[in-house]
Amino acid sequence: CDYDGPAMKTQVPGPRSQELTKQLGEIQNVGAVNFFCNYNESRGNYLVDVDGNRMLDLYTQISSIPLGYNHPALIKLMAHPDNLSTIVNRPALGILPPGNFPEKLMESLLSVAPSGMTRVQTMACGSCSNENAYKAMFIWYRERGHNTPSAEDLSSCMVNQGPGCPDLSILSFMGGFHGRTLGCLATTHSKAIHKVDVPSLDWPIAPFPKLKYPLEEFARENAQEEARCLEEAEDQIVKWRHKGKPVAGIVIEPIQAEGGDNHASPEFFKSLRNIARKHGCAFHVDEVQTGGGCTGKFWAHEHWGMDDPGDIVSFSKKLLTGGFYHKNELQPYRIFNTWMGDPSKNLFLTEVLNVIRTENLLEEVTRSGKALLNGLYELQVRVFASRGQGTFCAIDVCDDATRTSIILKARNKGVVLGGCGDRSIRFRPALVFKEYHVHLFLNIFNDVLAQH
Amino acid sequence: CDYDGPAMKTQVPGPRSQELTKQLGEIQNVGAVNFFCNYNESRGNYLVDVDGNRMLDLYTQISSIPLGYNHPALIKLMAHPDNLSTIVNRPALGILPPGNFPEKLMESLLSVAPSGMTRVQTMACGSCSNENAYKAMFIWYRERGHNTPSAEDLSSCMVNQGPGCPDLSILSFMGGFHGRTLGCLATTHSKAIHKVDVPSLDWPIAPFPKLKYPLEEFARENAQEEARCLEEAEDQIVKWRHKGKPVAGIVIEPIQAEGGDNHASPEFFKSLRNIARKHGCAFHVDEVQTGGGCTGKFWAHEHWGMDDPGDIVSFSKKLLTGGFYHKNELQPYRIFNTWMGDPSKNLFLTEVLNVIRTENLLEEVTRSGKALLNGLYELQVRVFASRGQGTFCAIDVCDDATRTSIILKARNKGVVLGGCGDRSIRFRPALVFKEYHVHLFLNIFNDVLAQH
Ligand code: FES
Repeated sequence: CDYDGPAMKTQVPGPRSQELTKQLGEIQNVGAVNFFCNYNESRGNYLVDVDGNRMLDLYTQISSIPLGYNHPALIKLMAHPDNLSTIVNRPALGILPPGNFPEKLMESLLSVAPSGMTRVQTMACGSCSNENAYKAMFIWYRERGHNTPSAEDLSSCMVNQGPGCPDLSILSFMGGFHGRTLGCLATTHSKAIHKVDVPSLDWPIAPFPKLKYPLEEFARENAQEEARCLEEAEDQIVKWRHKGKPVAGIVIEPIQAEGGDNHASPEFFKSLRNIARKHGCAFHVDEVQTGGGCTGKFWAHEHWGMDDPGDIVSFSKKLLTGGFYHKNELQPYRIFNTWMGDPSKNLFLTEVLNVIRTENLLEEVTRSGKALLNGLYELQVRVFASRGQGTFCAIDVCDDATRTSIILKARNKGVVLGGCGDRSIRFRPALVFKEYHVHLFLNIFNDVLAQH
Repeated sequence: CDYDGPAMKTQVPGPRSQELTKQLGEIQNVGAVNFFCNYNESRGNYLVDVDGNRMLDLYTQISSIPLGYNHPALIKLMAHPDNLSTIVNRPALGILPPGNFPEKLMESLLSVAPSGMTRVQTMACGSCSNENAYKAMFIWYRERGHNTPSAEDLSSCMVNQGPGCPDLSILSFMGGFHGRTLGCLATTHSKAIHKVDVPSLDWPIAPFPKLKYPLEEFARENAQEEARCLEEAEDQIVKWRHKGKPVAGIVIEPIQAEGGDNHASPEFFKSLRNIARKHGCAFHVDEVQTGGGCTGKFWAHEHWGMDDPGDIVSFSKKLLTGGFYHKNELQPYRIFNTWMGDPSKNLFLTEVLNVIRTENLLEEVTRSGKALLNGLYELQVRVFASRGQGTFCAIDVCDDATRTSIILKARNKGVVLGGCGDRSIRFRPALVFKEYHVHLFLNIFNDVLAQH
């Protein structure tokens, strides 16, 4: 169920992709379209385009394909007649769940629940997962200790005013990405082009550590940098409390993905978790891009080695469904929408988790990740700051123009890559990316860099 | 493919539903769960629960099931091997669309495009459809006439501040519902419990007409009421401009659904559209609940009889995919997220539209709707303000407690209903709800009211 290597017939985008881009351009904005795909013919780690080009995929639909394309286990699942009705009849899960919903949740999401979390709310994408996680934190912050909303709360909130709509805030980090709907966007600070022209909320933002590589060489500087960021985060919490906009929650990614694959040490996250606790803020770990096994553990926060990593963990992408886990204390009362997720995605997730277990994919990712990172270290005459956890790896190149040129050249040689941050290239293969594929990739990538 | 009537075995929720509610309660909040369903056994207009009760469904998963349960055309679609890969491999549509995507859009969404709109952006639910429609309006408002963002725009927006994040607003209506993510929620004013404890934006809100029924009897009062609301809307636009928070767009539902099935005349909407034009605001028609044929026309705004009903029309629910149509001028540049919709939902929509056409379902809805509304008029000794368009109908009862009791009694007699507003009962059957079902429903409903 996998091809034996890339096979290129045309430049990418080829003539068929160009024709389709023109057609689609009549209907919608195609500014971001790379090329058109033949998903029927795509297999495992290989994405096939409409011109018959077959490419090794290290970007996997912005890190959202867990087992590669057309995994036989998922195709088999579809063929099972019991599953037809789950796909055809999408329920309003919050009011009329299917009879097998509790069991399916136990088999799937609860079987990989983060430490200390026994409850989960499904959602449909990363944005509604985070938006609703923020709402859960606001409601929790307000209702702690005291009772139901007052008459004044209920009347003022109808016209968007306090006290019913409180001046609460979420602390986020420069370089973070949590989605693009208005609430999420107020905590997203990866690229100006994501934010400009859209009204926002005056919420606090702390710096995220900018580590220097190789880490061994800059141990002292990096520790100082993390201490500075922690101090600033705590300052912001105090400052916004004095401003009358207390911080209800802190949101952070274990690795800032869109912002440029920025890492920090487990100690940084442990200290931040303590700062949250000290100031009575909820701690929300956004694992939308890091979750699902690509770091070699199911959740990236497991690398911190904590029993109590957070109050909320949100997810989407590789988990196919969205949602968030939460501690008992943070009951997401009044969190509701029409669909509240999609059981058909949950069905696929159950099977994805089975495959991860039976094929030992977390171990495979750890092994492939080591090979990948070693290979990237060996490229280091030409690239900077090779870094990663599992196969969730990245490098920096000298500037954005160089990056674009490398990504396009790699594509024409049969490798799909993506960028992140100002000048990083990120690697986001599926969990079925083996050592064999690493070497295939490194050979091609070495060629690309050599020609550069 | 339909049953011949309701068949009840237990009270609802029955013992199996109660047991499952307890199980699910260990995992998540079950405050809103009505009962658990057997979607395998559900057919057409009948929803079957896990206790074997078969109910005539006039709520259809919060108005989101277009053709009833397990429609044979949709089941057949699933069985087709070509469609497997569309369901198994969810693409990042904005960068790597499938080869058939332009064609599928033409066959489905573009074939029912609102008057004056030739472009459509798919999304995944009502909330992201509206959130991104708002962003498209903000960006359009800012970029009209002038050029790309300045250096100051780009730096200030990264920390959520002006001028990059402008103080622009969306004008919404009291009683409106546009979703529950933070941006949408700032325009939602249906129930306090949706809004309380969540920070919001200081945006203008105009009154929505409160019409008196029967309409013939209160023609003059209703016209005055609509004039008052229009005047107030225009006042708000001027006031917010002076406050330094200009209105970039106006958002309105053709029938306020969650807010209590509040209707207004075509003249009201025409005048409001003119006010938007006069003040340079975009006009956004939210058809998330009204779209898809339930009013007897595919879009509720078609009842206004306008060539140029709006600048943006958003949709979701019965259309299975979310998204928004827009005029050429409102290019949604920089509107992006991981999935940008879901082609598997689009696949089903194509088939739903085929069935609507081949089975003349819009005519059927018009016919059933007339029978339903006539039946509701005849109930009028006991209920108030019977109103509707197509089968999108509602009545008022004297208070919330009475409503709850009626809905529960109806359910135990085999009819699923939903409430909206303070004391309304809404009717939202599928498009396959025929006159025969109307009479079946009215018989049972008359019994329920008689016992009340
Ligand atoms: S906001 Fe998540 S699916 Fe629409």
